[in-house]
Amino acid sequence: MNDRLPGASPPYFTLGRPIAYRGPSFRPSDAEPFGYRFYDKDRLVLGKRMEDQLRFAVCYWHSFAWSGGDPFGGETFLRPWHAVGGDPMAQARHKADVAFELFRLLDVPFFTFHDRDIAPEGETLAESNRNVAAIGEVFEARMAETGVRLLWGTANLFTHRRYMAGAATNPDPQVFAYAAAQVRNVLELTHRLGGENYVLWGGREGYETLLNTDLKRELAQLGRFLQMVVEHKHKIGFKGMILLEPKPGEPTKHQYDYDVASVYGFLKTHGLENEVKVNIEQNHALLAGHTFEHEIALAQALGIFGSLDMNRGDEQLGWDTDQFPNNLSHVASALYEVLRGGGIGRGGLNFDAKLRRQSIDPDDLVFGHAAAIDLCARGLLIAEAMLQDGALQAEVERRYAGWDSPLGRDILEGRASLDELARRVEQDRIEPQPVSGRQERLEHLVNSYF
Amino acid sequence: MNDRLPGASPPYFTLGRPIAYRGPSFRPSDAEPFGYRFYDKDRLVLGKRMEDQLRFAVCYWHSFAWSGGDPFGGETFLRPWHAVGGDPMAQARHKADVAFELFRLLDVPFFTFHDRDIAPEGETLAESNRNVAAIGEVFEARMAETGVRLLWGTANLFTHRRYMAGAATNPDPQVFAYAAAQVRNVLELTHRLGGENYVLWGGREGYETLLNTDLKRELAQLGRFLQMVVEHKHKIGFKGMILLEPKPGEPTKHQYDYDVASVYGFLKTHGLENEVKVNIEQNHALLAGHTFEHEIALAQALGIFGSLDMNRGDEQLGWDTDQFPNNLSHVASALYEVLRGGGIGRGGLNFDAKLRRQSIDPDDLVFGHAAAIDLCARGLLIAEAMLQDGALQAEVERRYAGWDSPLGRDILEGRASLDELARRVEQDRIEPQPVSGRQERLEHLVNSYF
Amino acid sequence: MNDRLPGASPPYFTLGRPIAYRGPSFRPSDAEPFGYRFYDKDRLVLGKRMEDQLRFAVCYWHSFAWSGGDPFGGETFLRPWHAVGGDPMAQARHKADVAFELFRLLDVPFFTFHDRDIAPEGETLAESNRNVAAIGEVFEARMAETGVRLLWGTANLFTHRRYMAGAATNPDPQVFAYAAAQVRNVLELTHRLGGENYVLWGGREGYETLLNTDLKRELAQLGRFLQMVVEHKHKIGFKGMILLEPKPGEPTKHQYDYDVASVYGFLKTHGLENEVKVNIEQNHALLAGHTFEHEIALAQALGIFGSLDMNRGDEQLGWDTDQFPNNLSHVASALYEVLRGGGIGRGGLNFDAKLRRQSIDPDDLVFGHAAAIDLCARGLLIAEAMLQDGALQAEVERRYAGWDSPLGRDILEGRASLDELARRVEQDRIEPQPVSGRQERLEHLVNSYF
Amino acid sequence: MNDRLPGASPPYFTLGRPIAYRGPSFRPSDAEPFGYRFYDKDRLVLGKRMEDQLRFAVCYWHSFAWSGGDPFGGETFLRPWHAVGGDPMAQARHKADVAFELFRLLDVPFFTFHDRDIAPEGETLAESNRNVAAIGEVFEARMAETGVRLLWGTANLFTHRRYMAGAATNPDPQVFAYAAAQVRNVLELTHRLGGENYVLWGGREGYETLLNTDLKRELAQLGRFLQMVVEHKHKIGFKGMILLEPKPGEPTKHQYDYDVASVYGFLKTHGLENEVKVNIEQNHALLAGHTFEHEIALAQALGIFGSLDMNRGDEQLGWDTDQFPNNLSHVASALYEVLRGGGIGRGGLNFDAKLRRQSIDPDDLVFGHAAAIDLCARGLLIAEAMLQDGALQAEVERRYAGWDSPLGRDILEGRASLDELARRVEQDRIEPQPVSGRQERLEHLVNSYF
Repeated sequence: MNDRLPGASPPYFTLGRPIAYRGPSFRPSDAEPFGYRFYDKDRLVLGKRMEDQLRFAVCYWHSFAWSGGDPFGGETFLRPWHAVGGDPMAQARHKADVAFELFRLLDVPFFTFHDRDIAPEGETLAESNRNVAAIGEVFEARMAETGVRLLWGTANLFTHRRYMAGAATNPDPQVFAYAAAQVRNVLELTHRLGGENYVLWGGREGYETLLNTDLKRELAQLGRFLQMVVEHKHKIGFKGMILLEPKPGEPTKHQYDYDVASVYGFLKTHGLENEVKVNIEQNHALLAGHTFEHEIALAQALGIFGSLDMNRGDEQLGWDTDQFPNNLSHVASALYEVLRGGGIGRGGLNFDAKLRRQSIDPDDLVFGHAAAIDLCARGLLIAEAMLQDGALQAEVERRYAGWDSPLGRDILEGRASLDELARRVEQDRIEPQPVSGRQERLEHLVNSYF
Repeated sequence: MNDRLPGASPPYFTLGRPIAYRGPSFRPSDAEPFGYRFYDKDRLVLGKRMEDQLRFAVCYWHSFAWSGGDPFGGETFLRPWHAVGGDPMAQARHKADVAFELFRLLDVPFFTFHDRDIAPEGETLAESNRNVAAIGEVFEARMAETGVRLLWGTANLFTHRRYMAGAATNPDPQVFAYAAAQVRNVLELTHRLGGENYVLWGGREGYETLLNTDLKRELAQLGRFLQMVVEHKHKIGFKGMILLEPKPGEPTKHQYDYDVASVYGFLKTHGLENEVKVNIEQNHALLAGHTFEHEIALAQALGIFGSLDMNRGDEQLGWDTDQFPNNLSHVASALYEVLRGGGIGRGGLNFDAKLRRQSIDPDDLVFGHAAAIDLCARGLLIAEAMLQDGALQAEVERRYAGWDSPLGRDILEGRASLDELARRVEQDRIEPQPVSGRQERLEHLVNSYF
Repeated sequence: MNDRLPGASPPYFTLGRPIAYRGPSFRPSDAEPFGYRFYDKDRLVLGKRMEDQLRFAVCYWHSFAWSGGDPFGGETFLRPWHAVGGDPMAQARHKADVAFELFRLLDVPFFTFHDRDIAPEGETLAESNRNVAAIGEVFEARMAETGVRLLWGTANLFTHRRYMAGAATNPDPQVFAYAAAQVRNVLELTHRLGGENYVLWGGREGYETLLNTDLKRELAQLGRFLQMVVEHKHKIGFKGMILLEPKPGEPTKHQYDYDVASVYGFLKTHGLENEVKVNIEQNHALLAGHTFEHEIALAQALGIFGSLDMNRGDEQLGWDTDQFPNNLSHVASALYEVLRGGGIGRGGLNFDAKLRRQSIDPDDLVFGHAAAIDLCARGLLIAEAMLQDGALQAEVERRYAGWDSPLGRDILEGRASLDELARRVEQDRIEPQPVSGRQERLEHLVNSYF
Repeated sequence: MNDRLPGASPPYFTLGRPIAYRGPSFRPSDAEPFGYRFYDKDRLVLGKRMEDQLRFAVCYWHSFAWSGGDPFGGETFLRPWHAVGGDPMAQARHKADVAFELFRLLDVPFFTFHDRDIAPEGETLAESNRNVAAIGEVFEARMAETGVRLLWGTANLFTHRRYMAGAATNPDPQVFAYAAAQVRNVLELTHRLGGENYVLWGGREGYETLLNTDLKRELAQLGRFLQMVVEHKHKIGFKGMILLEPKPGEPTKHQYDYDVASVYGFLKTHGLENEVKVNIEQNHALLAGHTFEHEIALAQALGIFGSLDMNRGDEQLGWDTDQFPNNLSHVASALYEVLRGGGIGRGGLNFDAKLRRQSIDPDDLVFGHAAAIDLCARGLLIAEAMLQDGALQAEVERRYAGWDSPLGRDILEGRASLDELARRVEQDRIEPQPVSGRQERLEHLVNSYF
């Protein structure tokens, strides 16, 4: 029996049934291409179902709205819903059917979208909103049928030429107003669909040249915009997190939400550090000169960790390649930091990843995601082992143990001044003795969990 | 008559008299190698003497403490005061004599130093402090003789192996205490010498691997350290600025004071954003993925602009090359931002730049600085023209003029919500029309001031 | 009298007459926006007319074929010839009219194009070729009217999806054949139009992942392709240079023509080092980790210097931003190397530069180019002064003078072995004495020519 | 019984016996810190002993000659043989004892060295050579006792100030002569010790600025130098490979041996492509913008693959961090390319890796190497599985199968011209159909071997 989702006809993927857990000895072949070796969604990991620890989401834009172009080449995928001359709303419905078919085949609990991914831009904002609302109804039906939920929604404030000089940070307040109206619409749709969170990626909130830019004014505009979003969230009773997504640049030369540290300073300036959290992406971290783990650990330390965009960049290339993760060490390290900080919470692991543009078979969409899902599941199990064993954490605690001494406590609790410390160094003849940082041992230990 | 500084004997440089202003038609040759073409210190620029607009400083470490080594090679300069087997304090005095001779020849108003640049480390901190104090007395005498002043002092908390795992952020609170005592000593010396400011560069305040690091705890340690320094400054009545110097990494993999935005968030967290400012370096900006202008403009927008380390990095190399500036466009752009934001104030332009290690002639020290001084002077004159002409600034104001409209004011002054703006977009049929960003015109305009 | 080019109607640019030389005191303003301050085409520079030293070319693709999109946003320019639903050939003719109008206004001697820039792709290659031929006829007429010539033509082997896995290096030989047929067509058109040279940029001649790539086989394919092109050139009697354009990657992860050194090794392998030269681009040099000057000097040293793509990259961004040059130091340095190596010869300075996508006014096309032209003219004058003065070159010669000694000659002329040199070191007690590299003096000297 | 190497007293490491193979279930702990989980040297891998497939070598310089300094800090390791005031030759003997003790504990078959790592520089070259010879005798004895062999020797032509402007490429031919004499001495010692190969890393063979550089002349000097080395090798009957080690820069701004492709072009120019091969380092590949796999695959395709320096760089940092490898995916991918190309041959895997400078315990030297050895062993087993399974290779062959068609053969075997191919495209109505590149499937497949 082929239990294909009603409406997804003709079948877009060759696979009929959802991918099943097959155990570690399974290896993909032409005869049996699909099977999870590690993603066993009901398996308990640190007391929670694996599905609830990972909370995977498939994103709409890369997988369904992107047609395979790059700056030097055009469409390669030839998705039927991108056929020239088609009826845009019919194409949007077709796209939605295929999307939910993919969610079903992958057996993921969540999806994510921008308003412009799901429905065509109209002549006016009102018409655009109606288009979005119509597909929103399709989503409601499909979500009810499949149980797939919305991890977060977001507004596309960067593709249309009106946003070429920014949305909230545009030199023209009319653009700010337009963007505000658009966000209001998607935030409310997200709320209506039971979305878990709402994301803002400020792709054009930055500058190309300081020569035409009033940086201070633009930062103030951006702050006011974010405050309005938070106010509106409370007004409509939306309980999800508002998430900013840091990125250093691209498409802009400089994006204000450069990295986690920059976002934190910005939130503090506007008194929003308890209202807004971050959605961290591996590739964005890399472009900002950080590891993914760094951004995760820093967000946790600052109390603004929200959710993850799970992909990878190319370490030799200087742009957002948004590839599916494929390096087990990197994935396990990132998930170790997530678990160490208390887990993914209300966030999730959104695959903000796209196929390479040569991967033109519809089934490549299934492969790319399934491979990433399985890799993350495997990384989670390694991270669990690292955490349960406790040897790594014990090393860290041992290293800082001195801070529980009277001297350490006096310093941190404010009972010591420069004068007082200078006095103690002299009186107690303090001459600190270096201790090995043991980095190679710890790296070796980490690999022993693989 | 050779008016060489008494004590600087035998002469270290071939030049006898300070470099004079010779006007733009001067060109260096073997016969007449030295002369300022643009640095005319008493010339008024925007109402202030050029010397007071630029406030140049020569740094001690690169020019006098570094011996020419790099990670793959040893000493090349063979400075007499680095001779093996010499008496360290006598060598320190010799070094001081030559340093003040260079300041005199260059005719710069300021210098900068770390404690360990000027005097040898002793067996104990007390002995090190005595060494520093002794050279401090030499400085007082030389400063009185020459009129050269101290732009800022700083403590070296990164060279000695006790600091290999950080100073304030060390896992061992004894190291924190030792660092505190060391800072106290240099801050007080800086105060005694009439120093204008005090700098903290956290060269080891970061990590090599997250595996052995408690990032959150280390940030708290660093915050407490900085608070102590501010408290002590007030206690002793030091009126200068406390300056943090951002850098993304090197020697660490990650330094907490990554860039201006990171520092700002950190200051806000610890309530120090009105107490501490930043000392921005071109090469550090570059390593963090920013332009120098960006870091300057951002610091001004955030109200934490303090001072500059004037050098350049190599755009093809991934480490701190600390070269003397040599690109007029870059220098003029940076100084335009400085002037646009109100000038250098109590800060200055410190040449945190070192000779290439092949530049082994003593006179190369004179050349490197003199070339940089002249280039900055020329950049200042260009920046002055840009500012006085006003065409650039007028373009920026025209671009944002819409924010003075009722819509713009309602947004920024908090009278508009998402609901209200959505209503206006619909009611007023707002459909924003893009306007050219005119970047190429502005870049062309900038070049016309050269 | 408005001497606008016949056919360029309605006027696309506000400017009517070609931009005139106005002298250095000219400054652009709203009232008088256009004028060359340094580009005085008949002025003699090192014995040749400035126009003949620089041989500027405007490229078709960025200025007329690109519509302003980037990976995160769509069309911004709204060029009339890109209107949806228009007749493609009529649009191509309109585009050609505007292009030649721009060439006339800028008063440049050359242009450059890809086949697909100038005419629409047809259903078959034969139809595409007919389209190209038809516009070729338009070009012939316009070139005759205006005197504008073709610096080089090239085939677009990267935009269409058939080339997604490469052209000559495609796993499918049918793609190779198709590409060969396309190159034949453009090479012959280039010859017919009196083009000075022919360029090959292998935008997709590389790989995305080694996992699906037979690198050795692909290099052999590419070698054979290039040989065919050279054979065909000789067959048809084309006298221009065949030029490869190095780039390290983008759109591919790795492009085989990585940089000048890579191309040289490739040419040697296939015995083509005397048949093929390089077209060097500043932005490509930067992405490969080199300065523009390095690539120029290396190509000259290897005897394969051909032509230049004159643009700039953004030093903070990791992709090909293709901006108009705006840094005088960089431009002067590059042109100094060109002149030092004997000049641009049969090559030229092609502005492979695009407007920022916010620069949506038609006149921005004029501004971008005019600013670049003037900057290059100014750079040329500086380079001329550097060369005529000779002080820089004299320093270099002095530095290597020892190689004219008997020892130096014995080494280079093959009369010395390791044994012999070891003997001389011991016998003559050779202990080489380092000499200052004088880098700062030389940088200072360079700036004195500005 | 403690079977410590005679002479290594007092014991420098806590470990007494060589590390044993313990199997995959072993995990390091404080109680049992050492054991190989995968390195089982006699296990057959593709028909050869694992030891012979990997041919590990420990390098002398990082482990024994480096004292823990970095550009911002001094010595941290306090190796006894670096004590100030010690007898240099006695210290060199002590160092050799500890080195061979480490080789024994790790159970590695090879080591590598520079002349200046093993013995102090004397007042003259003759004295330096005597020092080297004396330690060479110590090596002979230790090698005989332990069975440890020499993978390659090399001359340090970069640390001493005489080489600050290059060795073979120095502006002074006396430096060339000195370098030649030094290489002769080490090449002969390498031969005497039965060394497998000889390496040249041109750390200073490049430039800091083009302004003082005659690039063409320096390339000619370097070519002549290399020819001399090859001539001498044949003269003395040395059978090992002469290996160049590519690196893009650092310490120079630009190094002539930039990457594998650059070296190949250089070898072709001088007719040395059959005489000289490359020693490829992961960190150098990364700095040149390549993956390690790329450099390996390219060298194999060009026929110049020689040996490997096995380490890793830090993907966020722009300098040579020379860390021990710790990423299984990267190591397995590199070893897959090695095996696919026929194995390591007469080369080896030299750990050109250094401890982090905080790793100050002597045992950290053991840990760093042991962890890397085990990771490489594991990577080798994965690579073996990938190769034996053959699914990856089959995909590649399938992808290029069309080149075995008549069209493909006609092209590669020279029977097709542009004219002929154009004719076929038209006549056969060739319209190539793109095929999926299947990258995600292949990446998934690779992970299934882990």
